[in-house]
Amino acid sequence: MRDSEAERIGRRLHKEGLASGNFGNLSVRDEAGFYIKRRNAYLDMPGALVFVPQNGPVPVDASRESIVHREIYQNTSAKAIVHAHPSYAIALSYFCDEITPYDYEGEMLCPRVRVVEGASGTRDLARTVASALRSSPVVIVRGHGTFAIGATLDEAYVITSTVEHACRILFLRSQVKIEGFPTRDSAGFPRD
Amino acid sequence: MRDSEAERIGRRLHKEGLASGNFGNLSVRDEAGFYIKRRNAYLDMPGALVFVPQNGPVPVDASRESIVHREIYQNTSAKAIVHAHPSYAIALSYFCDEITPYDYEGEMLCPRVRVVEGASGTRDLARTVASALRSSPVVIVRGHGTFAIGATLDEAYVITSTVEHACRILFLRSQVKIEGFPTRDSAGFPRD
Amino acid sequence: MRDSEAERIGRRLHKEGLASGNFGNLSVRDEAGFYIKRRNAYLDMPGALVFVPQNGPVPVDASRESIVHREIYQNTSAKAIVHAHPSYAIALSYFCDEITPYDYEGEMLCPRVRVVEGASGTRDLARTVASALRSSPVVIVRGHGTFAIGATLDEAYVITSTVEHACRILFLRSQVKIEGFPTRDSAGFPRD
Amino acid sequence: MRDSEAERIGRRLHKEGLASGNFGNLSVRDEAGFYIKRRNAYLDMPGALVFVPQNGPVPVDASRESIVHREIYQNTSAKAIVHAHPSYAIALSYFCDEITPYDYEGEMLCPRVRVVEGASGTRDLARTVASALRSSPVVIVRGHGTFAIGATLDEAYVITSTVEHACRILFLRSQVKIEGFPTRDSAGFPRD
Repeated sequence: MRDSEAERIGRRLHKEGLASGNFGNLSVRDEAGFYIKRRNAYLDMPGALVFVPQNGPVPVDASRESIVHREIYQNTSAKAIVHAHPSYAIALSYFCDEITPYDYEGEMLCPRVRVVEGASGTRDLARTVASALRSSPVVIVRGHGTFAIGATLDEAYVITSTVEHACRILFLRSQVKIEGFPTRDSAGFPRD
Repeated sequence: MRDSEAERIGRRLHKEGLASGNFGNLSVRDEAGFYIKRRNAYLDMPGALVFVPQNGPVPVDASRESIVHREIYQNTSAKAIVHAHPSYAIALSYFCDEITPYDYEGEMLCPRVRVVEGASGTRDLARTVASALRSSPVVIVRGHGTFAIGATLDEAYVITSTVEHACRILFLRSQVKIEGFPTRDSAGFPRD
Repeated sequence: MRDSEAERIGRRLHKEGLASGNFGNLSVRDEAGFYIKRRNAYLDMPGALVFVPQNGPVPVDASRESIVHREIYQNTSAKAIVHAHPSYAIALSYFCDEITPYDYEGEMLCPRVRVVEGASGTRDLARTVASALRSSPVVIVRGHGTFAIGATLDEAYVITSTVEHACRILFLRSQVKIEGFPTRDSAGFPRD
Repeated sequence: MRDSEAERIGRRLHKEGLASGNFGNLSVRDEAGFYIKRRNAYLDMPGALVFVPQNGPVPVDASRESIVHREIYQNTSAKAIVHAHPSYAIALSYFCDEITPYDYEGEMLCPRVRVVEGASGTRDLARTVASALRSSPVVIVRGHGTFAIGATLDEAYVITSTVEHACRILFLRSQVKIEGFPTRDSAGFPRD
């Protein structure tokens, strides 16, 4: 059940282009720890998730980002976490410390998305991410990707998809050159 | 039959990237009301549609946008409605009150697409959308998405796909920098 | 066999985004005529193709563009035709009468792609397209889409995909702002 | 086993848009030679791979790029090779001799990606590519595509996907016009 749910969400993430190659991961909280994607497994073919206890050594076959997940579970009420690498969110992350969606869904679900940074794999970054997730369901790590939390994997996936949609709209909107649009003459025929 | 048709169209919408996450919805008219996507369900895995009567309270498990669908069915001859969040249509919607497709399909199927606005979830916006759909098969709500109508779900889907195609062409066309194109010398060899 | 081949190719075209909604069509030559996609059918779910005789009235359930296909079969040795609506090829078509691919595959398979124009559905446009296809395996109708021919549907599909790839590369290439790229200092660390 | 692995990886490459049409190929080393995609086969439907001996004539039904693969196997410890045509990597390749990823995954897996050039199909280009792959798991042939190596097809695919992701981020990042972003007033309402 847990594994098939993970595969169902992983397939959605891969299909929407939110994570390519074998990147991205996801986990679900359990008593005394959490279950996370196996290291190097594909998000859309995760196989059996690996148990990571809340304390003590991380199993070697658990995702490389287990330390971040552990910190998030310790500091928030998250029941599930999705980490993805969405292109537009990453591209915008280089330029701001907070992203303000301008589309309706973004404004509704994540009106202010913090962008944080830090050396990957460090406990420092894990703490920064976990801290930011106490006041928002999603955070972007500059040049890296998103961490989103929810009461279920579905919730964490939807918020991830929403942030990328919001960033894509912000990006495309900033590119529009309205003066480059064709117009129609008074008779309604298009002309340049 | 109704549910499997909804899933077939929902899968096409998701596959073409016209709605990501759990956004977008669709409905089909029935006697004394309409059947609509269940709240929070995925467009490509809608499950059983929920019946909403033309009058009276909206069932709690019906899509959040049921009020807009109801208003559309009351004011038009629509037999089916598709609501999507296509990125290029949304990006362009911030800049104009009407979009004039310039590609062949757009000119043929939706030569003038109105862009309307209003606070989401309000009866006001619902009326504005329904009113605009009396003279065109599709309308864009600024910063939000499209509402398209048809005699069937297929028709409403095709017009949605056509509008996004038209907006993508308008966008890409406005970006082309022909001076950045390579040319060939008289012998036919490419050179910068 | 013929129908399942059409579906196989139609699915590839739809999956690569070369035609969305119910647009695009394909046909294969037969004795005394050709088999073409049914009007309004989806390219990826074409069902049974419809026979169109080389002369005389076109069956009402045959694709709207049957007249173009007929003209092509009369004027070339094409055994199969694919018509698609690829976004980058259409966007570039507004600016030139010939597109010169700059990537390796484009240079090899379609070094010069003519862009033609004409009122859709007219015999005039059909003749212009057919004529252009006597010297090249693919032609772009301005603001509309591509017509590609081959000895098989596979060949016509591959050339369609190649032209769109070539146009996407031309487009992206013209957008690159190399001065916007990050550099690294002498120690190899990235910096702006 | 070998063939089904090739199909699994080929499907991922096609699904992520890393190779369209019938382009791209892959191979796996074997004793005294290697198995490579059949000429003209689709990457996502490769069928049975074709054996190419390390020396002597290349079978006529083997991929046209077999000569490059042979040279790579002779000069590196590669166990598998993936050749793809990723759009962003190709677009950037016209402007630099080395690409420096700026995103986390790119920096980690391929901090410096060499861009080489040469006439396709020549032994000269084959040698240049093989030589570049002695110091990096992936190289870009200008205007053509990527060659990536690994201990497995999975590794070669992941590095291919990583390079394209890195190039897409570099491209999008260079396009961002932060001044075109909406801001919010002190009360938190969006405004232009």
